[in-house]
Amino acid sequence: MLPAVPARLGRRGLAIGIDIGGTKVAAGVIDVHGQVLAELVRPTPATDPRQVEDVIVDLVHEFAASYRIWSVGIGAAGWMDQSGSTVLFSPHLAWRNEPLRENLEYKLRRRVMVVNDADAAGWAEWRFGAGRGQSRLVCITLGTGIGGALIADGRLERGRHGVAGEFGHQIVVPQGHRCECGNRGCWEQYASGNALGREGRELARANSPVAQDLLRAAGGDPDAITGALVTRMAAEGDATCIELLDDVGHWLGLGLANLAAALDPGQFVIGGGLSGAGDLLLLPAQRSFRRHLTGRGFRPAAPISMARLGARAGMVGAADLARINARTGTRGTRPAGP
Amino acid sequence: MLPAVPARLGRRGLAIGIDIGGTKVAAGVIDVHGQVLAELVRPTPATDPRQVEDVIVDLVHEFAASYRIWSVGIGAAGWMDQSGSTVLFSPHLAWRNEPLRENLEYKLRRRVMVVNDADAAGWAEWRFGAGRGQSRLVCITLGTGIGGALIADGRLERGRHGVAGEFGHQIVVPQGHRCECGNRGCWEQYASGNALGREGRELARANSPVAQDLLRAAGGDPDAITGALVTRMAAEGDATCIELLDDVGHWLGLGLANLAAALDPGQFVIGGGLSGAGDLLLLPAQRSFRRHLTGRGFRPAAPISMARLGARAGMVGAADLARINARTGTRGTRPAGP
Repeated sequence: MLPAVPARLGRRGLAIGIDIGGTKVAAGVIDVHGQVLAELVRPTPATDPRQVEDVIVDLVHEFAASYRIWSVGIGAAGWMDQSGSTVLFSPHLAWRNEPLRENLEYKLRRRVMVVNDADAAGWAEWRFGAGRGQSRLVCITLGTGIGGALIADGRLERGRHGVAGEFGHQIVVPQGHRCECGNRGCWEQYASGNALGREGRELARANSPVAQDLLRAAGGDPDAITGALVTRMAAEGDATCIELLDDVGHWLGLGLANLAAALDPGQFVIGGGLSGAGDLLLLPAQRSFRRHLTGRGFRPAAPISMARLGARAGMVGAADLARINARTGTRGTRPAGP
Repeated sequence: MLPAVPARLGRRGLAIGIDIGGTKVAAGVIDVHGQVLAELVRPTPATDPRQVEDVIVDLVHEFAASYRIWSVGIGAAGWMDQSGSTVLFSPHLAWRNEPLRENLEYKLRRRVMVVNDADAAGWAEWRFGAGRGQSRLVCITLGTGIGGALIADGRLERGRHGVAGEFGHQIVVPQGHRCECGNRGCWEQYASGNALGREGRELARANSPVAQDLLRAAGGDPDAITGALVTRMAAEGDATCIELLDDVGHWLGLGLANLAAALDPGQFVIGGGLSGAGDLLLLPAQRSFRRHLTGRGFRPAAPISMARLGARAGMVGAADLARINARTGTRGTRPAGP
């Protein structure tokens, strides 16, 4: 657990938030109100951890020429250790047990914190977005997979080893679809952008007449159907794509009910790229959630809201966590040498 | 969340713990080390909430004649509200939104706390049993169903509405076995004493030759086969019953892996009646857990231990929570009247 937000929480001080994705690195200067004062984007050099570090260092130096920066937060997919210093594993990057904080604090001469990207996004929604003020918030980031965060009593719950909140890898279908984590039937194989694209492709490959318009929009190639395409066509009123989103919403609601059974949050916030589908996803998810909530009728049903901060949530949250951590928490030990 | 255990935690003071089950009410006088100094058992009067209150009052008065009692903790199956004062719902009893604490504090002139029985048992294992000192402990009580508790940083996590930890009602098999909670496919339909009995009965009804000995032990009546019988015969070496426990262990491990994905505990403790099966349950559960743990190889696998306090865990935990709560926490307001 991270320390609770102190009473006089960083009234001043700018922080840099850096969101390292599979294809691009997005960085911003963030103030204490979560406002993005400046922003830069670079392509992600995925092959060598040193190159990613160099990109981070360049970005910080570029910002530091114009802003007085106190701390730097790095958000990335994958598992960070409990203290926010080491990347245990990152699926899209070449990091394995990488002491990223130590390396970067030495190079940057600033406090650095490394966090899971979904944790960062959830923190931002709790601090500045749709979940503000919730005493117990579960935030779900729906992208290619499912990221998760739990913020309870003003603390980000990171678990004993720093890898809590991997809700997407709860097995909900025995012997179901294969997941990149090595298991079958993980929730994120049924309620994510990837799942939506896969279902669209399967439907098109089955030569179903209901998928003709979808297949045409993909240039006649089933393999070109993506979750983003299905979402766009659903928004334009395509009945089949609306059904596909409905199916994903069903699984989303079922998984949220599982989380309510275990965690009993006061609210859910749904972010990430797929949340752009809006009510086409939210309404079936809410219906399924109410249907699958254990103890319905004897307990309150937590509201499910859409996130407010969009694609910058990870950047904003990483910066905010780094600033708070620098003011209250432990600092990574720097190497002794030059 | 309950308050963290204070530094000079109740060095003195006895508390009564009362565990209200479907058939019997077990009560004990518990000291600050979790030792049971005296114990009484009564049948549960299930029809009228007032009668259950009367049994509790009688038990407390009987103990109070010999011991100086500071507080009373009541553990029962079901959902209590966040503050530990009201029973929202109890499956085996007639309580619905029952302000049990207020009623009892008025009658007993002592501080009272009402807790979920699995929360109480988990707390006891963390304080005095197999999970002592764990910074993040998940405790599973395997009986007819599955009860759960999470103790993190010295606090019992009870959720926003007091109903966190209902791990047994996570849906792991879509359209699976019907559960008393109103859903299908809940974990407790696959990894509990009830599940073990159901599987034994189904096997016997299928006239499988491998179930002949089991059927004979049940007097030739498939309906007489229970989880307890299967467990006993497995302990005596019956190959079929060992297989049935193996299947339940498989589901137990899968569900624990789901919990590890979400909660990332440092340790699991398994208690409740079914835990008496020992290694016949634990070994297949550990194997299945390691097989289904997301990120295996990149993260530590939390150890899974058997509980140490046995059937008294609920009583001991309820007493301990009540004593700590009386010393640090909010007290229920007593009625103004006579």
